[in-house]
Amino acid sequence: MRVYNFNGGPAALPLPVLERAAAEMLDWNGTGMSIMENSHRAKEVVAMAEETQAVLKELLGLGDEWKVLFCQGGASLQFAMIPLNFGQGQVCDYVDTGMWSTKAYQEAQICGAKAHLAASSKAEDYTFIPERYDFSSNPRYVYLTSNNTVRGTQWPSFIQNAPAPLISDMSSDFLSRPVNLENFVLVHAGAQKNVGPAGLTIVLIKPTWAETGQKDLPHMLDYRTYIEHDSMFNTPPVFAIYIAGLTFKWLRDEIGGLAKAEKLNQAKAALLYKTIDDSGGFYQGTAQKASRSLMNVTFRLAQTDLEKTFLSEAKDAGLVGLNGHRSVGGMRASLYNAVNLTAVQALTDFMVEFKNKKG
Amino acid sequence: MRVYNFNGGPAALPLPVLERAAAEMLDWNGTGMSIMENSHRAKEVVAMAEETQAVLKELLGLGDEWKVLFCQGGASLQFAMIPLNFGQGQVCDYVDTGMWSTKAYQEAQICGAKAHLAASSKAEDYTFIPERYDFSSNPRYVYLTSNNTVRGTQWPSFIQNAPAPLISDMSSDFLSRPVNLENFVLVHAGAQKNVGPAGLTIVLIKPTWAETGQKDLPHMLDYRTYIEHDSMFNTPPVFAIYIAGLTFKWLRDEIGGLAKAEKLNQAKAALLYKTIDDSGGFYQGTAQKASRSLMNVTFRLAQTDLEKTFLSEAKDAGLVGLNGHRSVGGMRASLYNAVNLTAVQALTDFMVEFKNKKG
Repeated sequence: MRVYNFNGGPAALPLPVLERAAAEMLDWNGTGMSIMENSHRAKEVVAMAEETQAVLKELLGLGDEWKVLFCQGGASLQFAMIPLNFGQGQVCDYVDTGMWSTKAYQEAQICGAKAHLAASSKAEDYTFIPERYDFSSNPRYVYLTSNNTVRGTQWPSFIQNAPAPLISDMSSDFLSRPVNLENFVLVHAGAQKNVGPAGLTIVLIKPTWAETGQKDLPHMLDYRTYIEHDSMFNTPPVFAIYIAGLTFKWLRDEIGGLAKAEKLNQAKAALLYKTIDDSGGFYQGTAQKASRSLMNVTFRLAQTDLEKTFLSEAKDAGLVGLNGHRSVGGMRASLYNAVNLTAVQALTDFMVEFKNKKG
Repeated sequence: MRVYNFNGGPAALPLPVLERAAAEMLDWNGTGMSIMENSHRAKEVVAMAEETQAVLKELLGLGDEWKVLFCQGGASLQFAMIPLNFGQGQVCDYVDTGMWSTKAYQEAQICGAKAHLAASSKAEDYTFIPERYDFSSNPRYVYLTSNNTVRGTQWPSFIQNAPAPLISDMSSDFLSRPVNLENFVLVHAGAQKNVGPAGLTIVLIKPTWAETGQKDLPHMLDYRTYIEHDSMFNTPPVFAIYIAGLTFKWLRDEIGGLAKAEKLNQAKAALLYKTIDDSGGFYQGTAQKASRSLMNVTFRLAQTDLEKTFLSEAKDAGLVGLNGHRSVGGMRASLYNAVNLTAVQALTDFMVEFKNKKG
C-alpha cells in the first residue's frame, strides 16, 4: 500500500514515473536491457539524455544562452565548485537564509573566496527572507538559496539590481513555479526533491559565464568539462537522468507545465497553511507569513509535548515524513510536485481530527 | 526479449537483481514508497546502506582496518581526490597501463602532485602489464589500474615490495576474483561494471591512511568527510547503493563468493580466448597472453574490413555491446560477473559460425 509521502528529500516521485520505470526495468526502449545496463554512449541513451535536457529547457523557457548539465555530488559539491571556479581570491556575496546557505558561505571560504555576508536572517532564527542587503561594491557574484527546506521559507521573488550576476541553489523549489532567470548565470538543484533519485545534480549555466572561470582546475570540478562533453566526459548517472526525463515529461504533459504546477502548489500550501492558521493556536507556523514556502510547510504544536504523538498517529494513518529537520525538530510537510492535493487533504483532515481530540 | 549484453560499462546486471528492483519499485521494504522516495536518514535506509557495506566487506574478507565509502563522480573524480588528499607537493608513482591510468597520472599533475611514471606499456600499445618498475626513492603512494577495459589487460597479481602503499583503480575487475589488499590503502571502483548503476563509486580506504591526508580541503573532496559521516554527509546516491547491495547479496548467495566468481570468470574467458586462438588467425587477440584480462576480451579480425559486418550480424543475433572502445576500435567482449557462461557460449557459437561463413 502506498503511503502519503511528505518527506523533505529524497521525496515523493510521480506514480506514473515509478510504474513506467518498473515496467521497463528488464527491457528499456526495445534494447533488451535495463536502462542501467545500456552504454551511456549508445545512441538511444544519448538521445534520452538530450531529450531530458530539451524538455527541461522547454519547461523553464530557457534559450540557447543556457546549458543543462548533469553533475553529481549534490549541492554540497556545488558549494565548492562555484567558488573554485569563480571566487578564488575574489569577493563573493552570500545571502544567509538558513543551514544550506550557511554551508555554501563556509565552503566558499575554504575554497579561497573572500565571502561576504550581504544579509542574514539568522538573528531571527531564519524565519524570513531578508529584503535589505549590504552588498560589496563589486562582488564576483551574489549567491542565494531560493527555498529553505529546514525553516520553510522561500524567496517570493528575487533580488533586483544586484551588483553582480545571481547564482542560486534552487534544489528544493526547482520546477515548482515559473522563474525568471534573466539575472542569473548559474542555478543548481539536487534531483531528490522535484526531479528524481538522489545522485544527480542539475546545473543550469550560461557557457559565457563558465568561460570566465578559473583555469587548470581538476576536470571534474570545472564546469567547462561538463559543457564541452555535454555531461559525458565520464559516465554520468544514467538511471537518475532517465527518471528525471520521465518526471520532466510528466510535469509537461500531465501537469501542464510550471504555471499549472505553481497553481497546484499554491492550492496545496494554502489548504495546509489555512488549517494551521485556523487552529486557534493549536498548530503554529514557524516561518513569517510573507516568507512562507510553498514547498516545505514547517509548524509546531503549541503543546510541544504532543508532537511525538502527532507524528506517530500520523504515521499510523499513512501520513509519513512529517518530522521536522533533525536540526530544528517540530513538523514539516513537504509538498513537492508529486504530492497531490488528495495527500494534503488527507493530512489536513487528520490535523483537524487530531486537534479536536487533543485540543 | 533480453539480449546477451557484452557492454564494457555500464554493463550487464544480474537478472534477479533487476526483477527484484522492478517488483518493489512502488513499495520498498514495506515502507509504502519506492527506495528512491525514502529519506536517506530513515532507519530502514541506513540499515540497508550498512548491510551493503557489511556484505561487501564479507565478500572481500576485509577487516576493521578498512572502511567502505559511497562516493560519486566516478573514477575521474577519484583521479583528482587521491592526489588532492595525498599528493600535493609530493612525489607519487604511477604505473601507466592504458587510457585510465594515463588520465589518473595527468590529473595528479593538475592537482599539484609530482607525479612520476614508474613504468609504462605505452610503447607497445598497452598490450601488457609491466613487470619492471623504476620507482622513486620515497614516493607517497604507488598507483595502478588493476584491469584495463580499453586494451583488455589485467594484473595477474600485484606489485610486491613496492616502496610505498598501493592505491588502485579496480573499477573493471572489482569483485571478479579474490584479491589480497594487504599492501593497499585505497581502492576505488565505479559501480557500472560489477556492482550496479553508474553514479556510485565504491571506495575502500584505511581510515589510518585517510588521517595522513591534506587538511582544509572542500568537504566533498576530503575522504575524512565520508568516513566521519559514514557516507551520509549529504544525500548519497541511495538507489545505486540499493542495487549494489542486491548485487553483493546475489554474488554471495547465488554465485557463492569471489573464489567461485573467479572460477566462473576463468571458464568464460578461457572459452572465448580458445575460440580466438583456435581460429587459425581469423580472430586475433590484442593483449599479450600473460596479461590477458578475464573481464574484457579484446580482439580483431585479420580481415579488419569484416569487423563492421561481424558487429552488425552479432547484434542481429542478440549479441550486443561487442564494439571495441571508441579510442581503439575492433571488438571487445566484456565478461563481467552478470554475464553467464550461456552468453559466452552463444558468442563463441556465433564466432565459429561467422568464421566458417566468411573465413
